[in-house]
Parts: sequence; structure tokens; C-alpha cells
Amino acid sequence: MISQVTIIAPGLLGASLGKALHANQLAERITIWARRAETRLDAADQDWCHNAAETPECAVAGARIVVICTPVEAIAPMVARIAAHLPDDAIVTDVGSTKSLIARVCTQTLQATAATFVGSHPMAGSEKTGMRNADADLFRGKPCLVTPLPETSEPAVRAVVAFWRNLGMEVASLNPEKHDEIVAHVSHLPHVLASVLSAQLGTRDASWRHFSGNGLADTTRIAAGSPALWKSILEQNREEVLRALDGFDTELQSLRSALANEDWFTVLNLLERGKAFRDKLTPVRRDGGPEHTP
Amino acid sequence: MISQVTIIAPGLLGASLGKALHANQLAERITIWARRAETRLDAADQDWCHNAAETPECAVAGARIVVICTPVEAIAPMVARIAAHLPDDAIVTDVGSTKSLIARVCTQTLQATAATFVGSHPMAGSEKTGMRNADADLFRGKPCLVTPLPETSEPAVRAVVAFWRNLGMEVASLNPEKHDEIVAHVSHLPHVLASVLSAQLGTRDASWRHFSGNGLADTTRIAAGSPALWKSILEQNREEVLRALDGFDTELQSLRSALANEDWFTVLNLLERGKAFRDKLTPVRRDGGPEHTP
Repeated sequence: MISQVTIIAPGLLGASLGKALHANQLAERITIWARRAETRLDAADQDWCHNAAETPECAVAGARIVVICTPVEAIAPMVARIAAHLPDDAIVTDVGSTKSLIARVCTQTLQATAATFVGSHPMAGSEKTGMRNADADLFRGKPCLVTPLPETSEPAVRAVVAFWRNLGMEVASLNPEKHDEIVAHVSHLPHVLASVLSAQLGTRDASWRHFSGNGLADTTRIAAGSPALWKSILEQNREEVLRALDGFDTELQSLRSALANEDWFTVLNLLERGKAFRDKLTPVRRDGGPEHTP
Repeated sequence: MISQVTIIAPGLLGASLGKALHANQLAERITIWARRAETRLDAADQDWCHNAAETPECAVAGARIVVICTPVEAIAPMVARIAAHLPDDAIVTDVGSTKSLIARVCTQTLQATAATFVGSHPMAGSEKTGMRNADADLFRGKPCLVTPLPETSEPAVRAVVAFWRNLGMEVASLNPEKHDEIVAHVSHLPHVLASVLSAQLGTRDASWRHFSGNGLADTTRIAAGSPALWKSILEQNREEVLRALDGFDTELQSLRSALANEDWFTVLNLLERGKAFRDKLTPVRRDGGPEHTP
């Protein structure tokens, strides 16, 4: 059992984490800090929350593990803010969906302390947000990527891997650059395409949407996500997203040429390759519920 | 009540049509023809099917309305095959998801006869296929586009509009070129993008798919559709699909430049426009069941 877990900025993910730690008796004490006083009061009312601190500096006092659940652009500033207040040997992790920049900056920030940063990306977000949608089972069966740097202390990495695994997650460890390359392709690129398609159709006659079906609805569903949140993700992972876009563009231009030249062999081949990939996508999380993080 | 409806090639749509006509007592007699003898035998066993003819020429004898339910590339050849055997004043329609080429060729084919062609696109397909998934309620509440040419006889158009409306469909009438432009954007373009994204991801490390979530699963779902069927649709609607791709590409390149130049105002604006369109997509057919035709 972990003596104290501190959750900074408990929204859907952070509050679900608190509930899950409590339900599985994994932490003796759970402390939170939230920017809004109302959220702190709400949290203090819940059975999983033992202490809602007034400041992040106070919240990390006594913590064995600190989990930063802010939007991606606020993670490194928060680590800088709490650095001097962390107990010796504390481990700081996060739930951000980009990792390269965060891992580098936060590791550097904590170099002068006896605490360690180990980045995490639990892939258990939802289109729902906020503490009131929190769910103790949010993490169960979902993938979690833990992204140490080469110099990160082994025991700290093992502790973070165990932390998520104890919540039922399927944990893999890989370097932050590889993480960002993968999510640029399997998460950020699909989001960008859904947004571009939706934005483009938004320039057309408004009546057209009445003639669309579930195909368009599914293809564009993630475009309904928060623009501010996604802008931050694209900012943090700009270079990898650009590379993923280039790969997509090469394939798209090849299909476009094939259509223009009536090269139906190439068109059919692309449709078949697309089907082959889609048919193999494991439906592990097709439970009708949560979707991919952010 | 219609004296006789003949359904050529009853798969999911055609057999659902037979069931729906029977359940709503809209036809005195329903005759079918299917290419495979086994399908003809299966149909003959069902209470909605009064006659499973041995040839399409025999199947149309006595028909008031003939509905061609073959894949799009086989519709015009089938109309040519049955033309000389159609009763006077018979109306021929179809369920194809492209309309321009089909309406032009089929109208010309029937010019020498006393029968009339009026194209239809009931948007009530599903990823399920075949007679055994047929559902008498498949059409209820879904859109249907009826696509007469300027010279098509008014009474025939009214009869086809009434035919689909009596099955509970929301029928709109528009010219075949406009139909093809709209579906190129709201159906064929999303399909192409889902296929290109899937094909592209299929070239990457096979382990990556384990790190994806419901976002990718939804965005690529339609890429699992039949490559042969979709190749035919792209063949029939090639020019409009190319135009829709151009519009998409303009928007994509503008986002790409904004990302490359760190022009976050433009990125945020595009994400916001995408969300605005998606938020307004009417969830009329989000019943977890059928999707867009084909």
C-alpha cells in the first residue's frame, strides 16, 4: 500500500484515479489540489479524498507518488512549482497524452531535488469530462504507456509501472520520443483528419448534413473534442504530427492519382490494405464507453 | 396497394424491402429474382415472397414497380436486360448510392419502351449484408434521395416518392448530379479518408495498434467495408469524389502550413470550425444499428 498519493487537478482522469486507488485499497491517504475552490470542496466531500489542500505546494507534503492531471501545457509549470516542496524520494508522474517535451523538461526540473519524474500516458480518457463522471473502473483493461528517459532511476520506473498495473492497466514502457511518434499516428493524426473533414464540410450547404449517415458521424466523432485541449496537444507534439501528416499525404496523393488516372488496380489495392488494417484493430476497448485519452 | 413489386437481387436492402412492403401491406404480390439458385430457394420460403422467378425477364412480368438492388455497376446492364420484358407503364427504380451515370443510361435504355426509370438512393445500408439480416424496419426514419431527370414523367416520380415515403423514409427529390456531389462529400470522401488512414497505418509497426483507442476505431470503422463494392462506387462517382478530395486537400494543406509555421490561431480556428460542424450533425440515425448505404 502506498502511504500517500497526491492528485493535482482531479478532473475525469484524476478523480477516477482517486476512486480506483480507494476502491482497490492501494493508498493509505489520498490528497488532492484543484485550481477551483468549488472543486476542492466537492472532492473533500468524497470518501476517496482524505485531504483537499489549499495549494499544490501543501498538497505534495508527505506524498510518495504525485500524479499531475492538468492539461498538457500546464504539466511542466506545475512540476516546477512543486519541485522545492517534494519529499525526498517522491515520484512525480502525469497523465498527459504527449511525452517527449514533458519528460525532458520535468526530469531537468527535478534534477536538483531527491525526487524523480517518470512520464505516464494512461489511455483511458473519455468525451465526458470532470469529477462527476469519475469511474473507479476507468483504467481497467486499458493500455498505459510509461516513458522513462535513459537516465531515469530504475526503481522509480518500476514503481510507476506497478502503480498503473495495480489499477488493471496493460502497461508498456518505451522512450518518450517513440511514444510521441506512435500517438501522433494512432491518435493525433486521426483527430486532425476528423477535424479537417468536419471543417471542410462546414463550408458546404448546411442541408447536406441531413443526407449523411452513421459513416460520417463515426468518422468525425472525435472532431467534437475540445479545440483548446487539442491545440495544446498539437503544440506539444507538432513535429511528430507533421511527420504523420506527411505519411498520410503520400498515401492520399497516390490514391488521388490512381482515381484521376482510372488506375483501379491501385484503388482496389488501397481499399484492401485499409480493410486489412481495420479488420485487425483489436476491439479491446470497444465497450461503448471511454475513448482514447486526452 | 401496389399490384406487384419485383425485387431484383434481394440482399440486405432488397429483402428488407420485401419484408417492409409485406409488413405494411403495401404490395399485393412480391416477386424476386436472385442470381444464386440458393438465394431464390431461401426467398421462396419466406412469407413476404410470393414468387421467386428463374430469370429477371420472367420476374418483371406483371410488375408495377421494379426495384434493382444489385451493386451499382450492375444496375444499368440489368435494366438493359429486362427492358423489352417490362409491362407498359412499369416504373423501374434502384437503390444504388451513385446516381448520375445510372439515371442517364437507364433513362435512355427505357426510352424505346413504355416504362420509366426513376433513380433512388435509400440511405439505409448496414455493415451487415445478405437476406438473413433483413429487417422490416430498416428504412423507417432514414433519408431517401429520389433523383429524376428533367424529362422524367411527373406521375412516375410521384409514385416512387410515395413508394419510399410509405415505408417511413424521409424522401427528398433532387437532380442526379447534385445527389452525386453531396454523397461524394458526406459519404464517399469520409470512406476514402478512412481507407487511406488505415492503409497508411498498415505500413507501420504492427504493435502500434495496441496503443490506439476508440478514436481510431471509430474514425476508421467504414474502412472495413467491401473493397470491391467501394471500388465500384468510386468508379461511378469518380469526378465528384476527385472534386471533394480537392476541397479536403486545400483545408488539409492550410492546417499543415499553420502547424509548420506555428500559427496556432489558424489551428485553433480549424479545430473550432470542425467541432461546430460535428456538434450540429443530427443524430437522427445514431441508433447503433444501420449505417449509410451502400
